[in-house]
Amino acid sequence: MRFVSYIADSKPGFGLATEAGIVDLAARLGVPSLRALLEGAGVAAAAPFAAQKADRTLDSVTLLPVIPDCAHCYCVGVNYEDHLREVQAAGVARPRPKQPSLFIRYPETFVAHGEPLVMPKVSNDFDYEAELAIIVGKGGRYIAREDAMAHVAGYSCFNDGSVRDWQFHSSQVTSGKNFVGTGAFGPWMVTPDEVGDVGKLAISLTVNGTVLQDGNTSDLLFGVAEIVSYASAFLPLKAGDVIATGTPAGVGFSRKPPIFLKPGDVCDVRIERIGTLRNTVVKAAE
Amino acid sequence: MRFVSYIADSKPGFGLATEAGIVDLAARLGVPSLRALLEGAGVAAAAPFAAQKADRTLDSVTLLPVIPDCAHCYCVGVNYEDHLREVQAAGVARPRPKQPSLFIRYPETFVAHGEPLVMPKVSNDFDYEAELAIIVGKGGRYIAREDAMAHVAGYSCFNDGSVRDWQFHSSQVTSGKNFVGTGAFGPWMVTPDEVGDVGKLAISLTVNGTVLQDGNTSDLLFGVAEIVSYASAFLPLKAGDVIATGTPAGVGFSRKPPIFLKPGDVCDVRIERIGTLRNTVVKAAE
Repeated sequence: MRFVSYIADSKPGFGLATEAGIVDLAARLGVPSLRALLEGAGVAAAAPFAAQKADRTLDSVTLLPVIPDCAHCYCVGVNYEDHLREVQAAGVARPRPKQPSLFIRYPETFVAHGEPLVMPKVSNDFDYEAELAIIVGKGGRYIAREDAMAHVAGYSCFNDGSVRDWQFHSSQVTSGKNFVGTGAFGPWMVTPDEVGDVGKLAISLTVNGTVLQDGNTSDLLFGVAEIVSYASAFLPLKAGDVIATGTPAGVGFSRKPPIFLKPGDVCDVRIERIGTLRNTVVKAAE
Repeated sequence: MRFVSYIADSKPGFGLATEAGIVDLAARLGVPSLRALLEGAGVAAAAPFAAQKADRTLDSVTLLPVIPDCAHCYCVGVNYEDHLREVQAAGVARPRPKQPSLFIRYPETFVAHGEPLVMPKVSNDFDYEAELAIIVGKGGRYIAREDAMAHVAGYSCFNDGSVRDWQFHSSQVTSGKNFVGTGAFGPWMVTPDEVGDVGKLAISLTVNGTVLQDGNTSDLLFGVAEIVSYASAFLPLKAGDVIATGTPAGVGFSRKPPIFLKPGDVCDVRIERIGTLRNTVVKAAE
């Protein structure tokens, strides 16, 4: 199943994205959001409605970030071998992480599929990062690695838009990873049964059709189960939490010469069996 | 004025801590929390009640973290010269930050004055960090340095309890700074008029009465105005946001031999003209 969060008729809703269109779940299940579904009955409650007639076309709604209001969003830094090497080659002090290198992104930075990706007025060093995002179903603390996959509700695409000069103001990347409108998240959440082996997915990023990142989740330094287990140890994970798993090689700042995004550029994050997340870059007016 | 958040008669409330006791503001102002006051009328609305008869003694309530539910909590890393040097001497890769080095702490990690500071079951490398905390009054984005002090509602003490082995799993400190029960925050918020020059405050930390940190905010690498201005650029600051400004030298992990906290240890963070934050260390049962 593919779950979408959206605005229709000026009201937030969520539903299933089927071949025929959107099956509204807020009305059918009596819960207001995908996060609320995950906190309650879980995705299985949607299955009986998957073959029903669509209520709307996908084109008729304005998509929201898959989980617009998650309690926690962690992102894993330098989690592909080839990206770790390109970052080190660019002179950034990043030792090989002993455990998943986590930073936090506030959900106020999220934008949906189709929404503009916002280059802030204070920088021109705006960079892309194609990532696989995990969406947590059942929460918990100290989740064992062997139990971790049962805590995953589904997967989505993420573009971890990075303001590089700010990111490298200090050892901690917080500022450069938390500008308004820089975290693209969508278009939908695909359940694990439709994804298959999450450790063997092609992941790519194009800018205006040119392939700039071309990786595979088989190269993740820390895989999905290890990340979920680690991220559950310090604070309990909650239903709807989001974990972006890191980006493969090919980011803009480490290229010679660097490639940074410009207003009007169209970014596509494409992940096998999940979908394509498209956003066009704009420069912030203020 | 000194503002406290607390639980009395099983209900959350907030008020003024005066010499005679607590003046309940939730009832008088019709807002549920200190954060709500800051979002609305602001601290000045409390002034007419400051001389009123106390409703309860301070001893009769269970204090909460000053702002239990802030939208954002940023902490500044390596923000005292002597602490930067001791961290570097301990072999941690921390270049001198060009701008305030921010990491995020979720408010679920907070504990109040008097509550236990929780050493997690997965580590014995639990360390203290005495810090001055800023509480944001009026929010905003791209706040100019010269306007920043007008956005500060007040100050408090913070003990940025750090799980050092986890903190150093990678370049990003997130995990080691976000264990449940490790961020002590209190006992109250003191308004700037009572603090005077925030850039000249003695700050110390004792464990069982032994002074282990003894600094002064005059040694901050980035001062309050610079930090507030910087932290407002990427995401707008909101009323009630918390910024812990960093710790002076004397932390446990960089000592030879290291000093780590043990169950039963009593930590006092004392800041001139603000107060004393006391917490006793416990080992997490699970």
